[in-house]
Amino acid sequence: MKALTYVEPGKKEVVEKPVPTIEKPTDVIVKMTKTTICGTDLHILSGDVPAVTKGRTLGHEGVGIVEEVGDGVKNFKKGDRVLISCITSCGKCENCKKGLYSHCEDGGWILGHLIDGTQAEYVRIPHGDNSLYHIPEGADEEALVMLSDILPTGFEIGVLNGQVQPGQTVAIIGAGPVGMAALLTAQFYSPADIIMVDLDDNRLETSLKFGATKTVNSSDGKAIEKIMELTDGKGVDVAIEAVGIPATFDICQEIVKPGGFLANVGVHGKPVEFHIEKLWISNITLTTGLVNTNTTPMLLKTVTSKKLQPEQLITHRFTFDQILEAYEVFKNAAKNQAMKVIISNG
Amino acid sequence: MKALTYVEPGKKEVVEKPVPTIEKPTDVIVKMTKTTICGTDLHILSGDVPAVTKGRTLGHEGVGIVEEVGDGVKNFKKGDRVLISCITSCGKCENCKKGLYSHCEDGGWILGHLIDGTQAEYVRIPHGDNSLYHIPEGADEEALVMLSDILPTGFEIGVLNGQVQPGQTVAIIGAGPVGMAALLTAQFYSPADIIMVDLDDNRLETSLKFGATKTVNSSDGKAIEKIMELTDGKGVDVAIEAVGIPATFDICQEIVKPGGFLANVGVHGKPVEFHIEKLWISNITLTTGLVNTNTTPMLLKTVTSKKLQPEQLITHRFTFDQILEAYEVFKNAAKNQAMKVIISNG
Repeated sequence: MKALTYVEPGKKEVVEKPVPTIEKPTDVIVKMTKTTICGTDLHILSGDVPAVTKGRTLGHEGVGIVEEVGDGVKNFKKGDRVLISCITSCGKCENCKKGLYSHCEDGGWILGHLIDGTQAEYVRIPHGDNSLYHIPEGADEEALVMLSDILPTGFEIGVLNGQVQPGQTVAIIGAGPVGMAALLTAQFYSPADIIMVDLDDNRLETSLKFGATKTVNSSDGKAIEKIMELTDGKGVDVAIEAVGIPATFDICQEIVKPGGFLANVGVHGKPVEFHIEKLWISNITLTTGLVNTNTTPMLLKTVTSKKLQPEQLITHRFTFDQILEAYEVFKNAAKNQAMKVIISNG
Repeated sequence: MKALTYVEPGKKEVVEKPVPTIEKPTDVIVKMTKTTICGTDLHILSGDVPAVTKGRTLGHEGVGIVEEVGDGVKNFKKGDRVLISCITSCGKCENCKKGLYSHCEDGGWILGHLIDGTQAEYVRIPHGDNSLYHIPEGADEEALVMLSDILPTGFEIGVLNGQVQPGQTVAIIGAGPVGMAALLTAQFYSPADIIMVDLDDNRLETSLKFGATKTVNSSDGKAIEKIMELTDGKGVDVAIEAVGIPATFDICQEIVKPGGFLANVGVHGKPVEFHIEKLWISNITLTTGLVNTNTTPMLLKTVTSKKLQPEQLITHRFTFDQILEAYEVFKNAAKNQAMKVIISNG
């Protein structure tokens, strides 16, 4: 089968690999129908995630059809259409019992990281019963690809950690796919204002269509002043960091009001200077995290009921043969007005 | 009347001042019977709190007897014995309605900061109905002085923000009065282990009497390794920072396990390097804050029922005439084996 693999920082290639086989009774082999590319894949290709080794198939998102199941799998059978979660979880360890699936002692984020991922014709999913979801009849499969990672990430790590409530003012820093996922799902809780902050006017324009009430272009370095002005000098109840660099973290810590929440969603490569000399007195709550995907079943219902329409995030479509081109488009997302790309197999 | 006032960084003096009078209908004038000194008073005297101006009477803790009440005061009358809260709150503004009394728009921490405080013979308490508590018959007044600030601070900002739960492992960094208050109140929730960390063996010894299960002397710079060893390499569920310097914050961020809580209680004068490049993935919750004192009525019940015995924290007693000596003892607390000092009037 064909697979997109990591070679070394800055280098990837499409190679021929054997189709994966059942290794443990809880494994499921899935024939991929649709996958996508995540900002995290770009981080890996930049060499930011040294645990990824040469030859690793990338990708942790997608939908497919069950090809084979191990003897211990109860919930799935050959031919089932499934959504793959970016988080693999055993359901049995201390962390899983706390609902902290992201830190499963025999899983967590391993797909396209510590084991081969979804940017291939087939993938092996460990702990299939806990890591796959049935696709409801008639559901839009492209929309569901957004549920492998970005929707639950923006929702759990941004909106739920930020404890967004009715009437509040929320700022989302970064209008990429995960920031947009936070924007879409924040509206479950009816905040009064959602201020979207980004460097790119096209993305900000799009965010207005997705429900943002105000936008701030931060390319002049004056985001903090602009947001304080938009909030009558009070700051925001919830600041969601969806970029992952010190400058955007800094905006968040300057705009969060006393008693407010700073929900970090971005993947960071460097430490940040945390202004605890000002914030010790501010009764703020700062959260970090990898998605647990414990809201995936709930999000599936919001998608099938059309309460949530994540297919809005898809801007480009490719076949698997065009995956290198898909990477080029996604890497230069702003220039290409790209948000999420869909890569279809066969 | 006599009052201990701030002069300039490093300098304080006892001066004669007029007895305060009712300025607003909601004011209460209290004749002080007992007060104490807080680590925050030492911060002010170091020049760390520039909002404190020359001539300001220090102190935000104590008990006394109501001398006079304004026309708008409903709950108190002359002769009532009262506990003074370090937080003044109007009960009416947006923040008060959220229970965020620490950020009351017409109060917050103002005593001994923006208005004259409790280290005097009399004090004016604004918003008396919300900022004073009746002292129950037969209660130990010295014990109650601990309820003005340190007990609710250690409890709300350490234990409640840290979400301490049964069976957990908690580390408290700093065995000063507020760290000890967190230690005493953490036991309401029956954690399995409480590891106390300090530079001073005498304080660590005392913490064992107060309920700590393990101690770590951090003076060799190896606190992190020692705590990781005590927790089988897993780290702690809750790390409570009760010092306020970068080194102790750093211990906390290194020992908190995935899904854990870092509750900052310390008053910081410098920013810290936050290792978000490691912690973005760890699902941690970091909190900061000034006490709201919304648990004071509950804590009063735990003290009168002897479930909590904060009088254990009192090591030295002085009369008001000896207040400068009391400051010397408290400033060199480790050398003097001092924890909290009581200063009695008349």
